[in-house]
Amino acid sequence: MKIYDRSGFPNPSRIRVVLAEKGLETQIEFVTVDLIGAEHKQAPFLAMNPSGKIPLLELDDGTLISESTAITEYFDNLDGNPTLTGKTPREKAMIHMMQKRAETELMDGVDGYFHYATAGLGPLMQPYVSPEWAGRKEWGERQGARAVRGMKYFDGVLKSRTFVAGDTFSMADITVFASLNFAEAAGLAIPEECTALVAWRSKVAELPSVKNRSGQAFLPEDLKRFGL
Amino acid sequence: MKIYDRSGFPNPSRIRVVLAEKGLETQIEFVTVDLIGAEHKQAPFLAMNPSGKIPLLELDDGTLISESTAITEYFDNLDGNPTLTGKTPREKAMIHMMQKRAETELMDGVDGYFHYATAGLGPLMQPYVSPEWAGRKEWGERQGARAVRGMKYFDGVLKSRTFVAGDTFSMADITVFASLNFAEAAGLAIPEECTALVAWRSKVAELPSVKNRSGQAFLPEDLKRFGL
Ligand SMILES: N[C@@H](CCC(=O)N[C@@H](CS)C(=O)NCC(=O)O)C(=O)O
Ligand SMILES: N[C@@H](CCC(=O)N[C@@H](CS)C(=O)NCC(=O)O)C(=O)O
Repeated sequence: MKIYDRSGFPNPSRIRVVLAEKGLETQIEFVTVDLIGAEHKQAPFLAMNPSGKIPLLELDDGTLISESTAITEYFDNLDGNPTLTGKTPREKAMIHMMQKRAETELMDGVDGYFHYATAGLGPLMQPYVSPEWAGRKEWGERQGARAVRGMKYFDGVLKSRTFVAGDTFSMADITVFASLNFAEAAGLAIPEECTALVAWRSKVAELPSVKNRSGQAFLPEDLKRFGL
Repeated sequence: MKIYDRSGFPNPSRIRVVLAEKGLETQIEFVTVDLIGAEHKQAPFLAMNPSGKIPLLELDDGTLISESTAITEYFDNLDGNPTLTGKTPREKAMIHMMQKRAETELMDGVDGYFHYATAGLGPLMQPYVSPEWAGRKEWGERQGARAVRGMKYFDGVLKSRTFVAGDTFSMADITVFASLNFAEAAGLAIPEECTALVAWRSKVAELPSVKNRSGQAFLPEDLKRFGL
């Protein structure tokens, strides 16, 4: 199997953790996509993923799977033991609910802030992601504020729960964790009062599937090089 | 079980179809939420679903599940025969990918157009959904254009496939279908050249789970009454 991605980026990092959790890392050939150079917005990549995003999984029969949730469902179900996406209907529901909340209230907010209110991925990407328009910056700031509200929401959740969707580490934790790393790289700080969120983040950072990945920096170093 | 929703609205309609597909309709007590009066943005509803959205499922033990994908996962897995969300890892991946694309490229675009570029749910809702700001209308128009591009994308998909994620009707079809009804109510027309999409839509409209639901108008009549 092949994965088109770029080390250190938020959504690709979600899948790197999934692979480590499921012990599948050695079965994957990673292909680097030049996000800064907008390679993913050109015809060859768009033919594989019309949404123009990474990560993208290519199965050995050529089937192409984009979207981190879909890729996670694939890997998590391969061994018939879906630890990250839930086994019972109730577990699946809780995990999918919290994972979608993490995308909507946190990841999407950070993404909007990063691409609209900051220099984002730089000049080559801007025409594709957020061309110049009157409300651009204000929209980005609104998205950033939403992400900070999202942090407070998840802090509340984590005051009474070990992990985001219940007692065990799941796809929802991975999305929240990746979003917080993205927020940090984009310059959005976790509010000081969010002590439960910060404690959970330290705990997750120590999980073997998250920690032992020296080759794949989990903090977006690429973005830092772009002056963020 | 209880579902908080409002007949005729796009995301609630997704779950009505799921219930009909799974033969579960009679097991649900429906509770109407006054979306036009912003009931879902007040403390009692926000305590149940902090995202302030419908549909919301309440299980008999009091567990609250929001997000249409999560509610669909719950109902679809109750009988151990997940016809709508996929059985094999590959099916699950395809369905989750296409369902997420339907949300991102279609449903979210229509929603943005409806709330930002039109009168949306009316004056009581505007402060919550899209307060006045300089780029408001332009943002809405951009989202509408995105939804129309999404229609063209799904038209292309349906030129070579019977259903959105493969050979069988799935959660992904339900999301596309609900999005097109929403688009129609919001005044976004399907481009004439999208003949495969239109043919698929007529076919889906005839499925028993979609058609025989006279009590629950599938076209958003509520919105029409608001002068759209
Ligand atoms: N919904 C997608 C989001 C993927 C995404 O936004 N990926 C980022 C990298 S972290 C990307 O490709 N950004 C470049 C762009 O938006 O042009 C998923 O779940 O995988
Ligand atoms: N992501 C949610 C979206 C739910 C949603 O947007 N519901 C609409 C009704 S179709 C709503 O509650 N709108 C009112 C609002 O946004 O205030 C889902 O999948 O259920």
